[in-house]
Amino acid sequence: MNLMIIGSVAMDTIRTPFGEVEDILGGSTVYASMSASNFCPVRIVGVVGKDFEQAHLDLLSSRGVDTCGIEIVEGETFRWAGAYDDLNVAQTLDTRLNVFAGFDPVLPESFRDSEIVLLGNIQPGLQLSVLDQIDSPKLVACDTMNFWIEGAREQLEEVIRRVDILFINEDELKMLTGIGNIYKASKKALEYGLKYVVVKRGEYGAMVVGEDLLFSMPVYPVEKVVDPTGAGDSFAGGFLGYLAEKGEFTPRDIKQAMIYGTVCASLNIEDFSIRILQGSTRDEIEARRMELIKIIAL
Amino acid sequence: MNLMIIGSVAMDTIRTPFGEVEDILGGSTVYASMSASNFCPVRIVGVVGKDFEQAHLDLLSSRGVDTCGIEIVEGETFRWAGAYDDLNVAQTLDTRLNVFAGFDPVLPESFRDSEIVLLGNIQPGLQLSVLDQIDSPKLVACDTMNFWIEGAREQLEEVIRRVDILFINEDELKMLTGIGNIYKASKKALEYGLKYVVVKRGEYGAMVVGEDLLFSMPVYPVEKVVDPTGAGDSFAGGFLGYLAEKGEFTPRDIKQAMIYGTVCASLNIEDFSIRILQGSTRDEIEARRMELIKIIAL
Repeated sequence: MNLMIIGSVAMDTIRTPFGEVEDILGGSTVYASMSASNFCPVRIVGVVGKDFEQAHLDLLSSRGVDTCGIEIVEGETFRWAGAYDDLNVAQTLDTRLNVFAGFDPVLPESFRDSEIVLLGNIQPGLQLSVLDQIDSPKLVACDTMNFWIEGAREQLEEVIRRVDILFINEDELKMLTGIGNIYKASKKALEYGLKYVVVKRGEYGAMVVGEDLLFSMPVYPVEKVVDPTGAGDSFAGGFLGYLAEKGEFTPRDIKQAMIYGTVCASLNIEDFSIRILQGSTRDEIEARRMELIKIIAL
Repeated sequence: MNLMIIGSVAMDTIRTPFGEVEDILGGSTVYASMSASNFCPVRIVGVVGKDFEQAHLDLLSSRGVDTCGIEIVEGETFRWAGAYDDLNVAQTLDTRLNVFAGFDPVLPESFRDSEIVLLGNIQPGLQLSVLDQIDSPKLVACDTMNFWIEGAREQLEEVIRRVDILFINEDELKMLTGIGNIYKASKKALEYGLKYVVVKRGEYGAMVVGEDLLFSMPVYPVEKVVDPTGAGDSFAGGFLGYLAEKGEFTPRDIKQAMIYGTVCASLNIEDFSIRILQGSTRDEIEARRMELIKIIAL
């Protein structure tokens, strides 16, 4: 199956204990598509400014990512600046929406037959609009954040009611449901009609909860986390990319997808931007997958 | 094999979002021995004051715990008062060492042949003194805390060099080793000569690291955590109790021990004090063990 991803394309300026980089390629769409490109044909939708380098688009294309849904408009590309003094906490120093502020995604005709869809973390109204432009997706997932839970709850709930899988940080899940216990909160979220809730827990891994599934996954043991930016997006990309490759979504497949998501996130955080992901191979992914299986196998 | 446990016996006053209790039975020795009593013969060493109720000792005995190492001296029993506004953070409101301040453990002759030993979280000098009184233990584990890492590092390091297994919270492991990455820190700790480091991560479970072992374990999904006090001690008790029952310490056994420790901790936190553990059965433990295995099985 193919996978369509919508979200942000950004130029990031990031400082971590291991270094500082300026105006590097980032954004949820980029991280997710780079990960997913290891598994399946990927299509991306987004917007960039005239300042966006063609080389970035070429890089994405070279990994089999169809970039014809990237609109290039007058103005500057979305910029985010952040710092991690503690690698578990992103501190936003500056956000400039630039061309992202006027983003109103219109899907290329050729994207309407997308089979798996990742609605990245953007305004819920835009997520709905994208969903309306797809003929009959087989699996739809969405990501979101506290900003939308607080500021656009009704629209966000409408999105969640229409998707199959919700990717969400544990704190945000608690905020969404108003429930402090993570197991109860996950079950509550299923009441929106979701098939699965994937709870992201940073350095503690991830958990997936479905009607008949509760599966917990530790992270891959990375000894030097250089930059955690995009970890969640890489996870979602690997997760959905694997499902697209597999073409089935049984609980067994979902568990495997959790492993592949975890592996992609682990590759991503070992360097800035997509420096590792852009050269990642399936062999490398399978090797880490086997290591991860050892870590959870009895 | 038998298991000897040394640590605190306390009367706790605790407030959590689910209630408040005063002067209830607590202390690391109590939690650990109650858990371990599901698996093997247990002996405990500690000190209490004249105010300590015989009924508590009877309760321990009724679970097959040999209490002849509990010294009853003039004065009051150790008291701890704490509160949890956030169930993940214990806030100490009051500590009265009382008779615990003059504790100088002398093992009953009949305890000198102990096979597995848990040196609970007490002054490292006392841990060493206890160790010297045991003939030839087959497996020794210790627990500790930030207070000793900061205040008695040399003695603590001597303890760690002499034991096989270290139970430690992740923040304390970072403090002990001076390394922020948990995987690197675990490996560094092994350099003391430990066979295994068991890293306790609260609601995120636990991880065990050995020369040829890295195994991660999520918690059992408890939907109502009433009181987390004693979770780590219950874990250690279940972990070592199972190893005593098994009589072997292969990596495979260690993984099973991680599950049993996790199950015992999960029972413990569902009510105050040892209200659940005191009535726990092996059947109940096996049922939760099977559930846990499902949560990590691919």
